[in-house]
Amino acid sequence: MQRIINDPDNVVDDAVRGYLRASPSLYAATDHPRVLKYAGETPDKVGVVTGGGSGHEPAFLGYVGEGLCDAVAIGEIFSSPTADAFLDAFRAADRGRGVACLYGNYAGDNMNVKMARQMAEMEGIDVKTVIARDDVASAPADQRDQRRGVAGEIMMWKVGGAAAARGDDLAEVIRLAQKAVDACSSIGIGLSSCTIPANGKPNFSIEPGHMELGIGHHGEPGIEVAPLTDATSMAKSMCDPVLADQDFTGGEVAVLVSGLGATPNMELNLLYAHIADRFEAESITVHRADIGNYFTSLEMMGATLTVMKLDDELKPLIDAPARSLAITR
Amino acid sequence: MQRIINDPDNVVDDAVRGYLRASPSLYAATDHPRVLKYAGETPDKVGVVTGGGSGHEPAFLGYVGEGLCDAVAIGEIFSSPTADAFLDAFRAADRGRGVACLYGNYAGDNMNVKMARQMAEMEGIDVKTVIARDDVASAPADQRDQRRGVAGEIMMWKVGGAAAARGDDLAEVIRLAQKAVDACSSIGIGLSSCTIPANGKPNFSIEPGHMELGIGHHGEPGIEVAPLTDATSMAKSMCDPVLADQDFTGGEVAVLVSGLGATPNMELNLLYAHIADRFEAESITVHRADIGNYFTSLEMMGATLTVMKLDDELKPLIDAPARSLAITR
Repeated sequence: MQRIINDPDNVVDDAVRGYLRASPSLYAATDHPRVLKYAGETPDKVGVVTGGGSGHEPAFLGYVGEGLCDAVAIGEIFSSPTADAFLDAFRAADRGRGVACLYGNYAGDNMNVKMARQMAEMEGIDVKTVIARDDVASAPADQRDQRRGVAGEIMMWKVGGAAAARGDDLAEVIRLAQKAVDACSSIGIGLSSCTIPANGKPNFSIEPGHMELGIGHHGEPGIEVAPLTDATSMAKSMCDPVLADQDFTGGEVAVLVSGLGATPNMELNLLYAHIADRFEAESITVHRADIGNYFTSLEMMGATLTVMKLDDELKPLIDAPARSLAITR
Repeated sequence: MQRIINDPDNVVDDAVRGYLRASPSLYAATDHPRVLKYAGETPDKVGVVTGGGSGHEPAFLGYVGEGLCDAVAIGEIFSSPTADAFLDAFRAADRGRGVACLYGNYAGDNMNVKMARQMAEMEGIDVKTVIARDDVASAPADQRDQRRGVAGEIMMWKVGGAAAARGDDLAEVIRLAQKAVDACSSIGIGLSSCTIPANGKPNFSIEPGHMELGIGHHGEPGIEVAPLTDATSMAKSMCDPVLADQDFTGGEVAVLVSGLGATPNMELNLLYAHIADRFEAESITVHRADIGNYFTSLEMMGATLTVMKLDDELKPLIDAPARSLAITR
């Protein structure tokens, strides 16, 4: 296991210490070792909170900052943060106007957010949630409530964060964050596995010469394991289910292609060229494309595609200023 | 070879097409397929050019943008751009006030920049160069002219780019870019190899359970191959030669910790915590720390450390606004 770590069981705490030391203008510690809050001035606004397992950096903590999230609950690698951590994140983000908790659809996160929300409400903190369910490979469109949240969460944080930053109230932040992630369809393609330090070996495998279409962010099984194809075919395999999921034709979209960790940026851009060709052929206008490591799975190879349908309400929120480790505009 | 590519021999051209499609507000094509220029307005200013082999993304093309480089010459993977490409980059960047070509000390780049410069001067384009030599592992301090350029190049582009953007003349841009990279000491540590698509197999190897201190960006041999240690010891192994190279004690520095490609961001931040501890112990004040994948080697695992001594002249240029794929401030 070729890692830069000390005790494999303390990787997350040790990394959090590093983020705090490296980015003091972004992160402030809280009383909870697994909760970071934005270090800058936060005016009287709706608090925006996210949280999730570690190993997906820059998600989740990289989206704390100006025009994005105000606090983050940090879990073990590929595990939900505790209910206590979510509760302390709500406390850190609350300015008396309520808290929007924007996170992904995983059993552990759902359970812990629910508990934290009940505890927060006993303290008089109004918490509303949006649960991202953008991974088209994880369930069909008519069972969207069973879908996992993947990189569409970034669009949800961007839109919800921008709405909160301009002063929208909690109901409006929630409405817009929900609208943002509902407008997203995502899919991943995995080319190799990854190793959780505390385990010491890969928790799933992809044979060389193969790829897994629809793989989840923790190696959850996808739609099919197939022989590795060229980038043109991979782009088609990713675009087909995404474009079948919503009617994007003739509209304007924001596109995000994220690497899963170890795939070089040049390959992500190479893949995007073929995605862009397809969109052009379908009369879909790309308003903006962000290509890079935005939501990873340790050192997995592969990529995810997220396509978001834009309208006059979402577009200015996607384009609004932001400052964080992951996005600066 | 688990890659997202089409023809392995056309990876660079295919990727350039992707960068152009993904980031039209940053990149414009030129008549040369391996030269991109900044797509935004470039006022009457000194042109700043860089160039180098591909596979180091976001270097080199990710540093084209506002307050950074105006044009880039793009080589094959781990190979110098051609002299023609450098020449066309000079032409693309020249606004009649001359061109600063800021690149790294590698034989192929030196030869091709020299030829391109001679051709440019026949056309009346005044080109001056700064050659980065910041890798302390590649030669001792008294043979600095033999050192390779590594991630200190980023500081050189940032300072030179900011000086050009504020209207400094060519001599001043060159003086400041040279001062910037002379103020940098860097070292890398490699934990795994990488595979050039056209070769199909790793061009060097690092055995599991081992690491290579001082490794170059193309797998050039380092100072020593040693058993893999914990992050605390790795930080010490990296800090010792860097802090011995220049007298940083009592001063202010900018620090860059770059991943080599496949090492997760959380490990880079974890490593940085130990580097920051050491700096604190040596009374070195960190003005800013940038931690992430800023200068990679395909999917190598490992990290590089660059430390730059700041003064009142360099600090505002490091902090100046910039917009590019790699750095936005």
